[in-house]
Amino acid sequence: MIPSPGPVTGPFSGRTLAGLGRDLREGRTSAAELTALALDAIAAHDPGLNAFVTVDAAGAAEAARRADAELAAGEDRGPLHGMPVAVKDLIMIAGLPVTMGSRHFAGHVPGTDAACVALLRRAGAVVVGTTTTHEFAYGPTGDRSAGGPARNPWDPSRMTGGSSAGSGAAVAAGLVPLALGTDTGGSVRIPAALCGVSGFKPAYGAIPADGVFPLSRTLDHVGVLAATPEDCLLAYGCLAVAPPPAASAPAVAWLEPESLFPGDPRVTAAARAAAGDVRAEVRMPAEVAELFRETYLAIQSCETAAVHAGRLAAAPGLFDPEVLDRLRLAAELPGWRYVRALEARRALEEHAEALFGGHDVLAMPAVPILAPPIGAREVTAGGARVQVRAALLAMTSPWNVLGRPALTVPAGTVDGLPVGLQLVARPGGEAALFAAARQVRGGRCGPAVRGGGPA
Amino acid sequence: MIPSPGPVTGPFSGRTLAGLGRDLREGRTSAAELTALALDAIAAHDPGLNAFVTVDAAGAAEAARRADAELAAGEDRGPLHGMPVAVKDLIMIAGLPVTMGSRHFAGHVPGTDAACVALLRRAGAVVVGTTTTHEFAYGPTGDRSAGGPARNPWDPSRMTGGSSAGSGAAVAAGLVPLALGTDTGGSVRIPAALCGVSGFKPAYGAIPADGVFPLSRTLDHVGVLAATPEDCLLAYGCLAVAPPPAASAPAVAWLEPESLFPGDPRVTAAARAAAGDVRAEVRMPAEVAELFRETYLAIQSCETAAVHAGRLAAAPGLFDPEVLDRLRLAAELPGWRYVRALEARRALEEHAEALFGGHDVLAMPAVPILAPPIGAREVTAGGARVQVRAALLAMTSPWNVLGRPALTVPAGTVDGLPVGLQLVARPGGEAALFAAARQVRGGRCGPAVRGGGPA
Repeated sequence: MIPSPGPVTGPFSGRTLAGLGRDLREGRTSAAELTALALDAIAAHDPGLNAFVTVDAAGAAEAARRADAELAAGEDRGPLHGMPVAVKDLIMIAGLPVTMGSRHFAGHVPGTDAACVALLRRAGAVVVGTTTTHEFAYGPTGDRSAGGPARNPWDPSRMTGGSSAGSGAAVAAGLVPLALGTDTGGSVRIPAALCGVSGFKPAYGAIPADGVFPLSRTLDHVGVLAATPEDCLLAYGCLAVAPPPAASAPAVAWLEPESLFPGDPRVTAAARAAAGDVRAEVRMPAEVAELFRETYLAIQSCETAAVHAGRLAAAPGLFDPEVLDRLRLAAELPGWRYVRALEARRALEEHAEALFGGHDVLAMPAVPILAPPIGAREVTAGGARVQVRAALLAMTSPWNVLGRPALTVPAGTVDGLPVGLQLVARPGGEAALFAAARQVRGGRCGPAVRGGGPA
Repeated sequence: MIPSPGPVTGPFSGRTLAGLGRDLREGRTSAAELTALALDAIAAHDPGLNAFVTVDAAGAAEAARRADAELAAGEDRGPLHGMPVAVKDLIMIAGLPVTMGSRHFAGHVPGTDAACVALLRRAGAVVVGTTTTHEFAYGPTGDRSAGGPARNPWDPSRMTGGSSAGSGAAVAAGLVPLALGTDTGGSVRIPAALCGVSGFKPAYGAIPADGVFPLSRTLDHVGVLAATPEDCLLAYGCLAVAPPPAASAPAVAWLEPESLFPGDPRVTAAARAAAGDVRAEVRMPAEVAELFRETYLAIQSCETAAVHAGRLAAAPGLFDPEVLDRLRLAAELPGWRYVRALEARRALEEHAEALFGGHDVLAMPAVPILAPPIGAREVTAGGARVQVRAALLAMTSPWNVLGRPALTVPAGTVDGLPVGLQLVARPGGEAALFAAARQVRGGRCGPAVRGGGPA
């Protein structure tokens, strides 16, 4: 696929990891050059985007030098070797400030890398800095963070979506070719969709979450954002506990998004067009959609309140006011509803199986609305007023409840704003997902636009 | 061990399953005779005890005839063949009223046997009826049930303990040689201890709980009550998913009960004397004891409220008022405390391992007080006022939190009321538990008193 850049165009716009890797190995560029490009682009563009919280110019330059030295010595760590990568600001990086987007962790510097960061480094990647997260990842809008909202490269007055807000913006603006995010209800896929890039949330636990600040332990997934699904797959192969085998010609069914949420018909049409020929069109029964929503809300609320109960009691004023209000509500949810939700989760597995039927992959819009203005909590979609948070989470959160692999790929634009097509697989169906991404119209992968150096 | 009967003495007082089985196989009695003895004794003594809710005279007689016919035909189903057994009134029995001790289930007749009842029948046992349970098993006192409180055969003004109240009374009075109970925080071991019989709660899931009305799904255990630990082991062998191997000479440590709860020193002394020589004396750190209490309370409250949320909303007036009050409190417990409790459960595993140290079995009083008067909610123990429910659950509920096998055996009397010695093993340590019961003074097993027929 040729990634279509938004209005902000950085050095990695229109590039893929595969293409950059070829350039690197064929001597047309170096890790040091790629890193310098990233750092320069961040300096130039980030003031308008607020994608980054902390930039580690010295550490990145040093890592890049090491990567170049290793390659020169014949040591090749694979597809991420020498690649500049950004990391969401709640994934621990040894020696760098990691703040969870919160005043509670202002100046907090972890002593140890998160497992996924250690895997990045083992793969030769160059960590250039941390990206804006919604405070404690507790919000899909990406616009409540101690350092201010991340801004959408397609229209800086609009939200990126969250909570991996800065990771979406940084990749979309071409500042880095790859970013890590976390996804508890859609927090990788929502910013990927609203920013017009690819985002992959693998199966629960497939990328280790050790050293990631928890939002909701049984829903939290680590994921990746990149221009194309192929780049996501390359990165996933370096981070996964057990990378997937190849697969071909999966059977794709279209899941009618209106059966989950009343969204913007233009978004549905764009995603449906990107999905192209499908084997079937299926609907989620209304009571199943409702059970998914209730189950997600109960599990997420109780687990999140458990994480923050101490801070909520000791220093509530340090939270963003909206985050504080939501946490207080979450802390009041009675435990029996959590118990019921854990039971419902098992029932929902069966409902999902019925929904998949004989198909390998379900396709649907990743987000049923266009990127709303920063701060908006209600927008008009299809002539009706809809709640922004509910809309953002509607298509993505069911697959966190079930821990299923899900990928969003760019599916064109509506009114100059990106639309994402989400593909969801069965447990163990990661390969089918990427095969489907190649198959569907919008996600077709191909060579990078430019064969030459990125400079 | 020679079971010491209380004031009420039925046909099975002083008898064991092993002795009865010999009599049966050597022609000195028949299943029909044993069943008739049980039914006659229930008719004679139960009006004063209220141990039984429903007696199935016709069904029991028919099952006994079948058992006799099978034995005559050379088909021997093992140690429970032809033995009269009582079943707690929340374990489903096909075709018999099973009421959960609640007006919510007045007249409820299940269509299918619970798995443990099916196993009883497969083992040739004769189900004679259902025994009083605290309403929905939600209380360790055994004195709040739609059909009124069960009464302690040692003193009918005193509680049996609960929730398997009638099962404790029925075995203690010699009305049946064996009864099934359930144990969520001590509900088999507490009535066994207060009524002076043996009670065994195996490891979580070791006896299948399908068809048992839930109290708290991750804490609920099915268990057995009988005169001696050997009888419990015989029954367990017929009901367990995987019966335990033999073991010898386990290392026993005494757990100082005051480190868990300030009980009656006379009870402690009796249990300590029954334990005899032990390898070590250990204490539970106060913060661990507190964490056990909090964890048990949070898990039990939230899971129980989840079971009853519908009834609580639709027909609260059908609950016993005390049960209703407790359920309403339970329904308010916030979910984040449940989440924390699930986390604490994992930490408590490590604390328990530290407590066990190199020992196989921990010994302690099963209940740190004597049987309180029916209806009492506060009693004096060791000169101080203590809460009855907290006292009853103090020594038993930690082993439900961890799902560990635990056994209580008679340990003499204080003021004419029974004391129980509790033995707790590691996961998989059931055999060590029964070996320890043979080893300790109070639980020594031996031949039954009488060799002749029970008549």
